Amino acid sequence: MAEMRAFPGDVADVVDQELDRLLPAKHDGAETLVEAMRWSLFAGGKRFRPALIFASGRIFGGLEKELPATAAAVEMIHTYSLIHDDLPSMDNDDLRRGRETCHKKFGESTAILAGDALQAMSFQVIADDANLSEQTRLRLLSGLGYAASRMVAGQQLDLEAEGKEISIDEVRHIHENKTGALIEFSVFAGAVIGSARAAEIDAIKTYGREIGLLFQITDDLLDVTETSESLGKTAGKDAAKNKATYPHLLGVAGAKKLADEAAARASAALQQIDRQTEILKKFVYYLLDRGS
Amino acid sequence: MAEMRAFPGDVADVVDQELDRLLPAKHDGAETLVEAMRWSLFAGGKRFRPALIFASGRIFGGLEKELPATAAAVEMIHTYSLIHDDLPSMDNDDLRRGRETCHKKFGESTAILAGDALQAMSFQVIADDANLSEQTRLRLLSGLGYAASRMVAGQQLDLEAEGKEISIDEVRHIHENKTGALIEFSVFAGAVIGSARAAEIDAIKTYGREIGLLFQITDDLLDVTETSESLGKTAGKDAAKNKATYPHLLGVAGAKKLADEAAARASAALQQIDRQTEILKKFVYYLLDRGS
Repeated sequence: MAEMRAFPGDVADVVDQELDRLLPAKHDGAETLVEAMRWSLFAGGKRFRPALIFASGRIFGGLEKELPATAAAVEMIHTYSLIHDDLPSMDNDDLRRGRETCHKKFGESTAILAGDALQAMSFQVIADDANLSEQTRLRLLSGLGYAASRMVAGQQLDLEAEGKEISIDEVRHIHENKTGALIEFSVFAGAVIGSARAAEIDAIKTYGREIGLLFQITDDLLDVTETSESLGKTAGKDAAKNKATYPHLLGVAGAKKLADEAAARASAALQQIDRQTEILKKFVYYLLDRGS
Repeated sequence: MAEMRAFPGDVADVVDQELDRLLPAKHDGAETLVEAMRWSLFAGGKRFRPALIFASGRIFGGLEKELPATAAAVEMIHTYSLIHDDLPSMDNDDLRRGRETCHKKFGESTAILAGDALQAMSFQVIADDANLSEQTRLRLLSGLGYAASRMVAGQQLDLEAEGKEISIDEVRHIHENKTGALIEFSVFAGAVIGSARAAEIDAIKTYGREIGLLFQITDDLLDVTETSESLGKTAGKDAAKNKATYPHLLGVAGAKKLADEAAARASAALQQIDRQTEILKKFVYYLLDRGS
């Protein structure tokens, strides 16, 4: 399956530079720890959440200099969650983005600590971002803390559900937290950094919730239809772990239908925002295409 | 060895109430996760760091209502660090404060996630504390993020040093980060919540650094001299793991001498603060006594 749509946004370089500035290879800290953090931070991730922050921020009038730190912070949280999810006691994955996972490369204790340090840093980065007003930073920090807690709760529920028959509502609840919370936060963050009105923030959060769902459905579909090589991570692992995914519960066709519905609701939410939201529409198409 | 001095401060109940309010047993989140978080949060810890925050805050004119949330946040970070340090891939400890460690009770993945969630919550708690000015919250969040990063770096260096012959300077560097950073932050936080002047903040940070050192030396001494029963955790584990502790490097007498010197420097730092600092002096005596 070829990806028909290009990944929207053009911020990966800016985010990489910001991450490199915030966590340079040369430093006077714990060498191996920083090496492990950078191993996972610079593993070729698409910077999906940073792209959402930039897209949303630009739509709502955020300045270019106001966006990189928050984008880097969210990528740090996301990376820490991948490191911990891959651990032997969790999903026990050896391969991520086409190379060894953090614990395979650096050992388990270093991987746990690298994740811990990335989480701590992410909050500090926003607290220290002098490009943002104090009020904006606090709104972001509160929202990020909440999203990070929800993400962890979702991962816990996901692990507890392994091997059990659970309902479609339960699957949705798990992923609204595990995957959705940080995606929703990303578009919210852009809106807060810009000057979105309350009604616009409601709409963008609905959009975020729906593309979070869409992201998860298409991720599940990729796990069924792709090879490990093309995915860069172990394919078929959901079925191997007897995870209750959308294709498992609804079949491939049913999951695709649910994806279409989520896409429609995401697009409808954008309609309520009287700004140039085309770039956010492109994320919907991109996600739909990757699952088709 | 009987503890001659009572533990200074009287804030444990206030902090426990605040923690219970922030993370109630009845909630609509991931049940087992919250149970695991509460298992470790309410394991009978002395609330040493919260006591420091209250003591420092009161000295510098902080209001009573301004202190509980930050105290709870620091205890959350401290608890998360204990949960992760006890993990099989780290110190592999089954016993903590006289009962099963989090991973023994709830399994490894839940313990990792409980620690992760406690860290996320701690930042959110401060970001949301409407009793503090926006500026104060951001200073605290920046300082807490830095302290939490240093703590993790110290744990990494400590694990790397196991079984190696390292110098007294290296031991000190490890523990200034692993244990000292959060203790230093605690007295700093009280000073920031109050209205400490810049010179006073310098002095209180020196005090924090020295009692952090004192804390670690006396902790090491307790590991040598006490039984597991009286400690509530596995005694003699430093020697068993061939950890380079202060008593190991300097002998018991040498370590006690270093403790006395740190105590003297902590007291000297307090002399530079023209306020009623007796309560902070009591922490010095308390720590000295527990190691004697």
